[in-house]
Amino acid sequence: MSLASPVERTDSRASIEPMIAVTAPDMARVNDLILAMAGSNVELIPEIAEHLISSGGKRLRPMLTIASALAHDYRGDAHVKLAASVEFMHTATLLHDDVVDESDLRRGKKTARTIWGNQASVLVGDFLLGQAFKTMVEVGSLTALDILSTASSVIAEGEVWQLSAAKHMTTSEADYLAVIDAKTAALFAAAAEVGPVIAGAGEAERTAMRDYGRSLGLAFQLVDDVLDYGGTAAALGKNTGDDFREGKITLPVILAYQAGDDTEKAFWREAMEGGRNDDKALARATALIHQHGALEETVQRARQYGEAAYAAASGLPQSPSRDAMLGVVEFCIDRVS
Amino acid sequence: MSLASPVERTDSRASIEPMIAVTAPDMARVNDLILAMAGSNVELIPEIAEHLISSGGKRLRPMLTIASALAHDYRGDAHVKLAASVEFMHTATLLHDDVVDESDLRRGKKTARTIWGNQASVLVGDFLLGQAFKTMVEVGSLTALDILSTASSVIAEGEVWQLSAAKHMTTSEADYLAVIDAKTAALFAAAAEVGPVIAGAGEAERTAMRDYGRSLGLAFQLVDDVLDYGGTAAALGKNTGDDFREGKITLPVILAYQAGDDTEKAFWREAMEGGRNDDKALARATALIHQHGALEETVQRARQYGEAAYAAASGLPQSPSRDAMLGVVEFCIDRVS
Repeated sequence: MSLASPVERTDSRASIEPMIAVTAPDMARVNDLILAMAGSNVELIPEIAEHLISSGGKRLRPMLTIASALAHDYRGDAHVKLAASVEFMHTATLLHDDVVDESDLRRGKKTARTIWGNQASVLVGDFLLGQAFKTMVEVGSLTALDILSTASSVIAEGEVWQLSAAKHMTTSEADYLAVIDAKTAALFAAAAEVGPVIAGAGEAERTAMRDYGRSLGLAFQLVDDVLDYGGTAAALGKNTGDDFREGKITLPVILAYQAGDDTEKAFWREAMEGGRNDDKALARATALIHQHGALEETVQRARQYGEAAYAAASGLPQSPSRDAMLGVVEFCIDRVS
Repeated sequence: MSLASPVERTDSRASIEPMIAVTAPDMARVNDLILAMAGSNVELIPEIAEHLISSGGKRLRPMLTIASALAHDYRGDAHVKLAASVEFMHTATLLHDDVVDESDLRRGKKTARTIWGNQASVLVGDFLLGQAFKTMVEVGSLTALDILSTASSVIAEGEVWQLSAAKHMTTSEADYLAVIDAKTAALFAAAAEVGPVIAGAGEAERTAMRDYGRSLGLAFQLVDDVLDYGGTAAALGKNTGDDFREGKITLPVILAYQAGDDTEKAFWREAMEGGRNDDKALARATALIHQHGALEETVQRARQYGEAAYAAASGLPQSPSRDAMLGVVEFCIDRVS
């Protein structure tokens, strides 16, 4: 694999392209189904859903379901329904997260709660979740239902855990990993695992896809947390500092805190626990994180999970879907540089 | 049936007793399962769940599932799991409703959002819903899953609809009935319908139980809406006026508005649309509602639905479960007087 350095490849960003290409015909059907599932006589529902659907997400999770089904020679329609359900589970989580985090912007666009209010965001999230379950029930696979309903519980449990852990500098690296395992990796894992399930593949194939999805999800979230402090590259991304302002203790913070002296530890406690999280504090936090190499160290963990994901999918028979799944691992990690 | 007048019976309140008696052994198992489903290493989850579980609800919905399964000679364990899932779906809705309505009290107790905040209420609601789905998947009946997941969507859609309709005096009686059909009656209907489904009964039995649950749910909600204006009896209940203060247009308001002159119509618009909903306004609203007989008229509709529920369950073979289901219809309506 070539996760090492962007200089090895001419265009490191291109590695999601095989995934987009291989899933394109089915993703067109997923998108149609998503629009149908968001249909309602209650105007507010398609209005909010349209806002979310057009918000420019990559739809990585449903693509995983499509690719992992294709990689196991699946030939039916169930992967389209499950992929749309996975995306709705994710969208419902985003709606509720924005309420919980009091976020005003997501991907540079106003959040639904800013436009339509917290009330509508909570209830439309519930509706999307209901539609997700209804659609996955139509598929008729009790195993797929078990995987996805379990993920739904685990995600919410992870979110509550994060809420409890937020603003406590005693959060350990193990606590943090358990939180992202639940709130992010569980859905990636479920999205990938249902592919072999509906294709009638065996236990080993299910385990491989679950491991692939879980490791990819962990790598993805670690990189996201790095990007929130501007990434490791000199050119900083936009909309950074959200986690800091929300008092979210992510791995870069934990590592910088552990490496810091008493004065720095006091700063972190005052910022994350005491709510001193203005722009000046963010600038100091970012400086400390860089100074202690916390972003590079976090990316290093992400690379390890990326390698695990790569290894889990490498056992698949050679196919464009397998290559797409491998390519997306690189893409997720290379976002950072 | 004897829905007519309380004087025909010596103790009209006693009619939920047969339901409690007939479901008691299974409800003990439902309660154990509910505690297990609320278990989590994330302390906040059992803490909030315990608050809700101990809040003194009657658990009418899960009792319907148990009784309707028993009425169809069901002999397995699935009814216990489905009943617990139904109660968790309901509890999740309550948690989210309190956030949406900004309610501080429910059944005279502080709401979870008042104690633990809106964030925890949203996320723990999501967790309970996830656990509900997970538990119903364990039962393995795709038909039951279809019924309950559809109900979940419909409930949320009804809630969004209510949010959109709230504070508009143009809400018609038909709009209102459609809202309560979705937000309340859908879960009663689903709770009752899954009984014959897991018992392997036929389509006619399913339809009868769905109709029973739906009509009972409509009657229940209409009576609830009457109780929020103090009921028809002289002795007023506690915690009245919540709907008025939240600008919720219920049938008593719609009927009083329709019967009112221009001055009264202006008052209602100012109160419900303009937010002039202080205690003085509530007193006038209550007086107008009484003056136009709007509570009695609403109770009359409730009685009609009660009769439909009674008729739907009357076709069941004679059994203690059937009697319990009939008795509960009277109980739901007699709450009002």
